[in-house]
Amino acid sequence: MTVHFSSRVGSRTLNPIAVAELEAKAAGVALGKLNDSNPTRHGLSSDEVPWVYSAEPRGPRHARESLADYLTGLHALEAAAAGREPKPVDPDDLYLLSSTSEAYSWLIKLLCDAGDAVLAPKPGYPLIESIAGLECVDAIEYQLLFDGSWMIDAAGIEALLDGPDGGRIRALVLINPNNPSGSYVKAGERERIVALCREHGVALIADEVFFDYALEPFDDRSRLAGETGVLTFALDGFSKMLAAPNAKVGWIQVSGPEGDAAEAKRRLDVIADDYLPMSDIIASRMDALLGVAGEQTALVLERVRGNLARLHELLDADPLGVVSVLRAEGGWNVLLRFPGVIDENALVLRLIADHGLTGQPGYFFDMTSNGYLAISLLPEPDAFESNVRAVLAAVAAMLEE
Amino acid sequence: MTVHFSSRVGSRTLNPIAVAELEAKAAGVALGKLNDSNPTRHGLSSDEVPWVYSAEPRGPRHARESLADYLTGLHALEAAAAGREPKPVDPDDLYLLSSTSEAYSWLIKLLCDAGDAVLAPKPGYPLIESIAGLECVDAIEYQLLFDGSWMIDAAGIEALLDGPDGGRIRALVLINPNNPSGSYVKAGERERIVALCREHGVALIADEVFFDYALEPFDDRSRLAGETGVLTFALDGFSKMLAAPNAKVGWIQVSGPEGDAAEAKRRLDVIADDYLPMSDIIASRMDALLGVAGEQTALVLERVRGNLARLHELLDADPLGVVSVLRAEGGWNVLLRFPGVIDENALVLRLIADHGLTGQPGYFFDMTSNGYLAISLLPEPDAFESNVRAVLAAVAAMLEE
Ligand SMILES: Cc1ncc(COP(=O)(O)O)c(C=O)c1O
Ligand SMILES: Cc1ncc(COP(=O)(O)O)c(C=O)c1O
Repeated sequence: MTVHFSSRVGSRTLNPIAVAELEAKAAGVALGKLNDSNPTRHGLSSDEVPWVYSAEPRGPRHARESLADYLTGLHALEAAAAGREPKPVDPDDLYLLSSTSEAYSWLIKLLCDAGDAVLAPKPGYPLIESIAGLECVDAIEYQLLFDGSWMIDAAGIEALLDGPDGGRIRALVLINPNNPSGSYVKAGERERIVALCREHGVALIADEVFFDYALEPFDDRSRLAGETGVLTFALDGFSKMLAAPNAKVGWIQVSGPEGDAAEAKRRLDVIADDYLPMSDIIASRMDALLGVAGEQTALVLERVRGNLARLHELLDADPLGVVSVLRAEGGWNVLLRFPGVIDENALVLRLIADHGLTGQPGYFFDMTSNGYLAISLLPEPDAFESNVRAVLAAVAAMLEE
Repeated sequence: MTVHFSSRVGSRTLNPIAVAELEAKAAGVALGKLNDSNPTRHGLSSDEVPWVYSAEPRGPRHARESLADYLTGLHALEAAAAGREPKPVDPDDLYLLSSTSEAYSWLIKLLCDAGDAVLAPKPGYPLIESIAGLECVDAIEYQLLFDGSWMIDAAGIEALLDGPDGGRIRALVLINPNNPSGSYVKAGERERIVALCREHGVALIADEVFFDYALEPFDDRSRLAGETGVLTFALDGFSKMLAAPNAKVGWIQVSGPEGDAAEAKRRLDVIADDYLPMSDIIASRMDALLGVAGEQTALVLERVRGNLARLHELLDADPLGVVSVLRAEGGWNVLLRFPGVIDENALVLRLIADHGLTGQPGYFFDMTSNGYLAISLLPEPDAFESNVRAVLAAVAAMLEE
């Protein structure tokens, strides 16, 4: 089934002037513009913003080329390790924007009319429901099930797609690895979900910001970026790759069956052209930023793996032994599990009162039962250890009461 | 009547943890966060993005303070000239984002549910209808009337507000001065429109990006930024102020009756918090950018005024004398008027074929009759003169046929 696009982007019939402009372009003629309102083309730039503005919907070409080169290298390493053919990333499949949040918002606009829906994982990243709501779109949850490790309830997804809401589901969000469960999409899950989406004319939105943060050597993971079986939008950015959420650089990589991908890009260009969010101030630093991506990812990976190892030691050494950590395959957070007799809110209120520490219990992420607390693996080792000790102390204190 | 807000931003009841966090904050206690996913707070930043990320919905405070200082100075000059009390701009009334396009999109989300409408000027900036469409909102046009100079059809606005669509109109867009008519909102118009909006519970969105580009000394103009009679969102940015559309810096200034303004900011914070578009890479250069704002505005003003004077000379000297320019009070563009016997599309196709120049005729901006062509005042003087001569030649050629 071919993918459904929203009616927010109109069909835009071309007026005679636009037709003549396209013809000139095809003939290699660069037309002047009587009504050119781009001051940077008329010698009016300052030294502070000295670049000529190209106003490309997908972002400045030089920046997309640098990014495509970098991603091609990154993906080639994985392909080699997995014995797959490497696929180069095409700069024309990339849309630069300021965050994955903005990417979600553009893609929901592209795919969903008001009242439509996207499928999002539960437990999951709470921002998706909020961003969908701002677009007048519902986020319907599909389940991740935990049984020693996490798996996607693909049968549940199928039931949703065939159920009463199926007709208004336009996209399925995969978070790979998911936050806060830390679980990667497995090869078998991927195949099943791609097939389901294709059959139902549903696009895939694959948020892979944490992809390079494997907490343990993990073979059975593969990037959805570049997937050709169904229309796929892979999201990534410098928030996690460079540990720089304040750089405000994110991107969408479009792939899929040729017809769907071409139509998606034509429509996404219209959306992108209305906002044009990428600043030349940032684009001019793209090479320098990419230049530190590898070392930044390595630095953070060392930190989160080190803290995870220390967490296991601390939990093992705890005399009470009632707190455990759910197996996490990737990402920056893990979920602690504590005895269900302790109320999640009560535990966090205790941590606030006794330790000056607040936190996010499982219900923040729609966990189906009580007894979870998310903990970040990012802090410096001493701070991390004292966070863990505070949780253990608060749990012990509450069990004593 | 109090302003209507959309249901896109929910009412968000606070959970017990959020309540305790607010209490701690009120008591001056800085809580640690067990699940802090901001790597810049944990010694993980690179030298390329060395700042600690504050994730403030309105944008980094230091950048808002610099901007508020700059705007206060700018507004004080005007107030002094007009014999009014100057009003300092409060950094807490400013939202930094990447463009006025993004500002329109946030404000439409804030005010309009799907199916609601905003009023926008005709002739006008075509992007507004497109941006509204992406939010599932209609742009309904109100008229500017031309009679030697432009005026807003306030009676027409009143009829729209009281008409069958009145109940779904949530905002009125004023462009001050308007593009491409170049007309400022006059004091009398302002009073009438503010009163109409207040009576009907409609917010004002005042796009003032061209405000500082008065093409002639013009007393009867005043900024809507800071208006207190009705909930007002004034838009501006570096696109025009610095002649730097590629800097990607815009802002919203919120003002109005206290209750409305406070509720608007509470809700706008929720929207802003989902996107957080302002990069520290740009914010770190805010002072440097503001440092060139004055000279950049002056440079462009000299260019557009110079070209407008030259335009008048060229039109006066034209032997045929059938092309005139509509009086423009401000902005970067003017509208040429040519004999109505010439079709607008045909003229532009002629310019493309004979002069390699394309253009935007009146119907691009919803002018009510044929015979207009927009021309930019930005080009370097020689290029501008040759553009004008091309139009005169094309008009002459078409009249001869
Ligand atoms: C699942 C997921 N996606 C994306 C992001 C990053 O978002 P952005 O690029 O908008 O900073 C985060 C940050 O926490 C996340 O957890
Ligand atoms: C009326 C109007 N508003 C705003 C802008 C600037 O938009 P942005 O800040 O999105 O670059 C323009 C640019 O042409 C305009 O004509």
